[in-house]
Amino acid sequence: MKEFMGEDFLLDSNTEKELFAFCKDAPIFDWHCHLSPEEIYRNETPKNITELWLGGDHYKWRAMRCAGINEELITGNAGDYDKFKAWSSVMDMCPGNPLYHWTHLELQRYFNIKKTLSPRTADEIWEETNSQIASGGFKPRELITRSNVVCVCTTDDPADSLEYHKKLREDTSFKCKVLPAFRPDKALYIDQPTFKNYIEKLSSSADKSIETFNDLRDVLLSRIELFDSLGCRATDHALTYMPTLRADEKELDSILKKGINGENVTNEEADKYKTELMLFLAREYYKKGWAMELHLGAMRNNNTLMFNKIGADTGFDSMNDARQAESLSKFLDMLASENSLPKTILFTLNPKDNYVLGSMTGNFQTDEAVSKIQFGSAWWFNDNIDGMREQIKAFANLGVIGGFIGMVTDSRSFLSYPRHEYFRRIFCSFLGSMVERGEYPYEPEILKSIVNNVSFYNAKKYFGVEV
Amino acid sequence: MKEFMGEDFLLDSNTEKELFAFCKDAPIFDWHCHLSPEEIYRNETPKNITELWLGGDHYKWRAMRCAGINEELITGNAGDYDKFKAWSSVMDMCPGNPLYHWTHLELQRYFNIKKTLSPRTADEIWEETNSQIASGGFKPRELITRSNVVCVCTTDDPADSLEYHKKLREDTSFKCKVLPAFRPDKALYIDQPTFKNYIEKLSSSADKSIETFNDLRDVLLSRIELFDSLGCRATDHALTYMPTLRADEKELDSILKKGINGENVTNEEADKYKTELMLFLAREYYKKGWAMELHLGAMRNNNTLMFNKIGADTGFDSMNDARQAESLSKFLDMLASENSLPKTILFTLNPKDNYVLGSMTGNFQTDEAVSKIQFGSAWWFNDNIDGMREQIKAFANLGVIGGFIGMVTDSRSFLSYPRHEYFRRIFCSFLGSMVERGEYPYEPEILKSIVNNVSFYNAKKYFGVEV
Amino acid sequence: MKEFMGEDFLLDSNTEKELFAFCKDAPIFDWHCHLSPEEIYRNETPKNITELWLGGDHYKWRAMRCAGINEELITGNAGDYDKFKAWSSVMDMCPGNPLYHWTHLELQRYFNIKKTLSPRTADEIWEETNSQIASGGFKPRELITRSNVVCVCTTDDPADSLEYHKKLREDTSFKCKVLPAFRPDKALYIDQPTFKNYIEKLSSSADKSIETFNDLRDVLLSRIELFDSLGCRATDHALTYMPTLRADEKELDSILKKGINGENVTNEEADKYKTELMLFLAREYYKKGWAMELHLGAMRNNNTLMFNKIGADTGFDSMNDARQAESLSKFLDMLASENSLPKTILFTLNPKDNYVLGSMTGNFQTDEAVSKIQFGSAWWFNDNIDGMREQIKAFANLGVIGGFIGMVTDSRSFLSYPRHEYFRRIFCSFLGSMVERGEYPYEPEILKSIVNNVSFYNAKKYFGVEV
Repeated sequence: MKEFMGEDFLLDSNTEKELFAFCKDAPIFDWHCHLSPEEIYRNETPKNITELWLGGDHYKWRAMRCAGINEELITGNAGDYDKFKAWSSVMDMCPGNPLYHWTHLELQRYFNIKKTLSPRTADEIWEETNSQIASGGFKPRELITRSNVVCVCTTDDPADSLEYHKKLREDTSFKCKVLPAFRPDKALYIDQPTFKNYIEKLSSSADKSIETFNDLRDVLLSRIELFDSLGCRATDHALTYMPTLRADEKELDSILKKGINGENVTNEEADKYKTELMLFLAREYYKKGWAMELHLGAMRNNNTLMFNKIGADTGFDSMNDARQAESLSKFLDMLASENSLPKTILFTLNPKDNYVLGSMTGNFQTDEAVSKIQFGSAWWFNDNIDGMREQIKAFANLGVIGGFIGMVTDSRSFLSYPRHEYFRRIFCSFLGSMVERGEYPYEPEILKSIVNNVSFYNAKKYFGVEV
Repeated sequence: MKEFMGEDFLLDSNTEKELFAFCKDAPIFDWHCHLSPEEIYRNETPKNITELWLGGDHYKWRAMRCAGINEELITGNAGDYDKFKAWSSVMDMCPGNPLYHWTHLELQRYFNIKKTLSPRTADEIWEETNSQIASGGFKPRELITRSNVVCVCTTDDPADSLEYHKKLREDTSFKCKVLPAFRPDKALYIDQPTFKNYIEKLSSSADKSIETFNDLRDVLLSRIELFDSLGCRATDHALTYMPTLRADEKELDSILKKGINGENVTNEEADKYKTELMLFLAREYYKKGWAMELHLGAMRNNNTLMFNKIGADTGFDSMNDARQAESLSKFLDMLASENSLPKTILFTLNPKDNYVLGSMTGNFQTDEAVSKIQFGSAWWFNDNIDGMREQIKAFANLGVIGGFIGMVTDSRSFLSYPRHEYFRRIFCSFLGSMVERGEYPYEPEILKSIVNNVSFYNAKKYFGVEV
Repeated sequence: MKEFMGEDFLLDSNTEKELFAFCKDAPIFDWHCHLSPEEIYRNETPKNITELWLGGDHYKWRAMRCAGINEELITGNAGDYDKFKAWSSVMDMCPGNPLYHWTHLELQRYFNIKKTLSPRTADEIWEETNSQIASGGFKPRELITRSNVVCVCTTDDPADSLEYHKKLREDTSFKCKVLPAFRPDKALYIDQPTFKNYIEKLSSSADKSIETFNDLRDVLLSRIELFDSLGCRATDHALTYMPTLRADEKELDSILKKGINGENVTNEEADKYKTELMLFLAREYYKKGWAMELHLGAMRNNNTLMFNKIGADTGFDSMNDARQAESLSKFLDMLASENSLPKTILFTLNPKDNYVLGSMTGNFQTDEAVSKIQFGSAWWFNDNIDGMREQIKAFANLGVIGGFIGMVTDSRSFLSYPRHEYFRRIFCSFLGSMVERGEYPYEPEILKSIVNNVSFYNAKKYFGVEV
């Protein structure tokens, strides 16, 4: 029996261990996350382990609900100690859930605690973690530095002032680059009730009124320039499926007007608007050399009762199962046909699409980059051992895995960096076990180069950031 | 090489074996099956092994057709010995098919026969099994008792008199509880030719005419009361996808009238009718504390020629591939929004939906039960080693597997209980191998509790039956 | 650590090795490929390793694009040596891609080269392979003979004169049977711009004008007779999904007329035309005892820019994700209902459909053949270790794997036969490891029979060819 989450966690053979030794100290390029630039700038010591672990982590909230915990102890008014105890009470029931591993990786790496969290150890761990937090080393910048992260791309709205990005840029004391990433979802969601207000906000961010589609383009362009001036290299888009309906300027103006007036738009109108706006944006990304991330297949806010109580991003999302192949192909082809397809990273929330997206990448590769079109790593509900293995296998079967830009945290927590270690162990196990089975030759220098590239150097090169 | 289906079948490491030792003698709560209450009540000795094995098992019939066996030897007029020989002739060709394991588990557990069935042993096994059957111990109640089953939920139509359930309730000699489960499919299938006659039957079962949708509600309500009085705890619904079209009372009356008159209803009308009837039923289930089972994704009676010859449930069904996510989410949300969502078990016949359903459960969990919304165990075409492993992995990755209510037989055969052993071995292998790999701690008491809960106690608690 | 691609490649236990020893020398029945009968007839020595490997292999082209290679070095005007070097430069990046294994199987089996291809060995291997090619043994017929292939079914258009098939039939010096297979895709694709010209070509091939749907039937029937006279046993159809819309003769004539005149047909019209034509063809296949192959789920020519530059079949295809279950069931049922369903092999390009197709086969089995309806082996993007294992597992779980007709190359290259070895190793590993785990009994004669049947004898019997 192997030691519980010991040194060789997820690594079996000597080759697997050797490969992990090669890359475990490689820096981290965190090219997609939801960390707050404001929190990084303010750099305050967290109150306690409950704030760190349960303050905003809807993955844990969801697991607690699955275990039958009362909402009061999850997002309600219960005290921090009680919430921590409630979370601890779930742990024994979670074999196989990635939260079990993340929790213990965080205890081990940041607190040097080897115990397992359970109702039997909750009090000790409550004391020990809070005592360490109070002693220092748990401010956002400290956690980032302790995690060997050299670049963080946060996720920012075009209407955002990027105030904290500017401040961070001026603060030379913090060695990790913090760059904005451009996520114009709210400008795309013309079919949601938030649209009207958002356009006003966007308009005032650029100090220019938005009445026509061309006004919208101008405003977004000015925001793109701002993001670019602060080092933006990546963009993000969450879509159920790729829209592909074309429209002319007149129709776009009329659809946009409806949206601005808070009128309903039809599905067809929304698709036309989104198509043309995505095409416009993608062309601009291409000019800037930015990468376009497409996160497909989420189904959000499924529980209306809870949405009305506690809002979005609280653990009530799940997988959609729309068809992706034809519309995604058509969208990418429109851009490729005009030589405007930016570097693109395709993510799916539904693992049924792993092979659809993995094979899609091959349709649009060029010599502009190694694996210019990437099949993005296992994301959200797939961010577990099985999901990562399946994504890696699909990428390897269908493309050149040596060009993979690797792991994303997609996280809101400063403690989430051990997920890179988790990924690296899984990747080294994938590659090392292949060597052990005689399916790839044992050439240490080549293997070392692959695991380091996938851990760090491919992403650095792909996004073109000097770190 | 391990012994063929020996003591350690499906178990590799010591931890896996230790876990199975913990739970192998746990009782069985058979909360979804197709056993006949009449047969349990009558309790007659089967004629021979052919009746036991091939009398109604369309899984075996299907395998025989795959092997090119003539229908005469499957459901035709051939003699019992010839049918048995035909089945035996298929066995060698079936490595990897669960029927191969089920057949030998049944030979081992009920007949103490360790030989493998093949053309080379068919005659011996024919003699030996039939001799044992004649010697006794193979009546339905004997098989249930020998299998350590403490509760059986049969599957019953609302129009059923439940005569044999009443009789079984009065018969105190049989220790296993036999409870009805409510399956109103025929009342829902307004788009099938059977509807008109069924409504007449349902109407007379309650001695009340059905002319309006409200009449239908009243009748079903009275049947629900009857089921409840006999201990019903579970309901079952087979649907291609969840319908979600609302309609008002007037429209429902008009649609129902068409159905009663044997007129065609449109797909839209059928969806409206089904939606409102399902919502009504679910609300009543919630009041009763019953669990709602949704079996999604079957495609039935694909072979018209054979359907016309030998009818339904004869081995001509397969998997459908409809989209499930949005409609299922919407349906559950309607109920959750009015605080009327009963305990719900989501089954998919198509494994592409494992992660859709597994992630869906998390949207609607509350503290009314541990894992109130369950992702149901691998079902029908997935009821094999690979399918069970995939379902368990998906459940564990996405929820708290410690709350899983475990295996269903979904069977028509009194010999099918070793499938619980099959499931327990697979589950213990899943959990034990995780411990061996250092992915979950070795704490025997916790592990013992998990495997016993998943084997039996979770289901007992979830359905709220005293056994 | 096992030797890289050594004797026991893909085989772990002794039983796996024993099984492979049983079947490794079984002949090959290549029942579906894209080899050119003209090239087989002409039997010319290839120019060099670049022509052999990179002359037409769009799998390799695609991998090169993924690696960021310039198109000039892929399909462009670069020299053969440079193209070979470019391909070599990709190899290190390809762990887990089947091209890595195929490349080295081909080096080992045809050139006796044990080195791995990489930038470090490219020059040596360039010299050595080209020197061997010049020394002889690399003509098409020599490669076929060295590969122990006893029958090849090429893929031929109904309008083809089959000139080279006739010549090959007359040439008694070549022992391998070369049979045509009937692929009428172009006659079905009434919705493509190629249709008009194709119908003219088809018409002149039979020297009969095509004006009505019945003319088309007559012409195709005469071509079917020609194919039959040359030993055809198999047919092939590439469809996104199975069409199922019926139409009468008058409507068919009118739709066909549009197609012949180069007018647009609607999707509905195209589906009607395709449905009736497929039904007609299938009935004829049934009369001839031919097998009908349905290749479902490809999405072709996704990159318009590259299509316009270098045409079809150049590596810009990927997986579609249409629903398959209902339409496929309906199509097969129409034929089964009139006792005209031919032997049928169902292929899916999208592995999400493995269990849909695997379970579909069971709906239509009869005693006309062992596994009359086959779930076809892992194809194209699935033709890798993972994909093959998944297809084999699905077949075994849902049917009788002992009746599986096994591997297809689907290849354009005379060097592709080691893929049969690849498949056999994977199949022997599947079956042998099952025996080692105690899940199937160790009876060597039975095991030997299964692996030989799946490797060769089942296909021979299924297609009914004397070899």
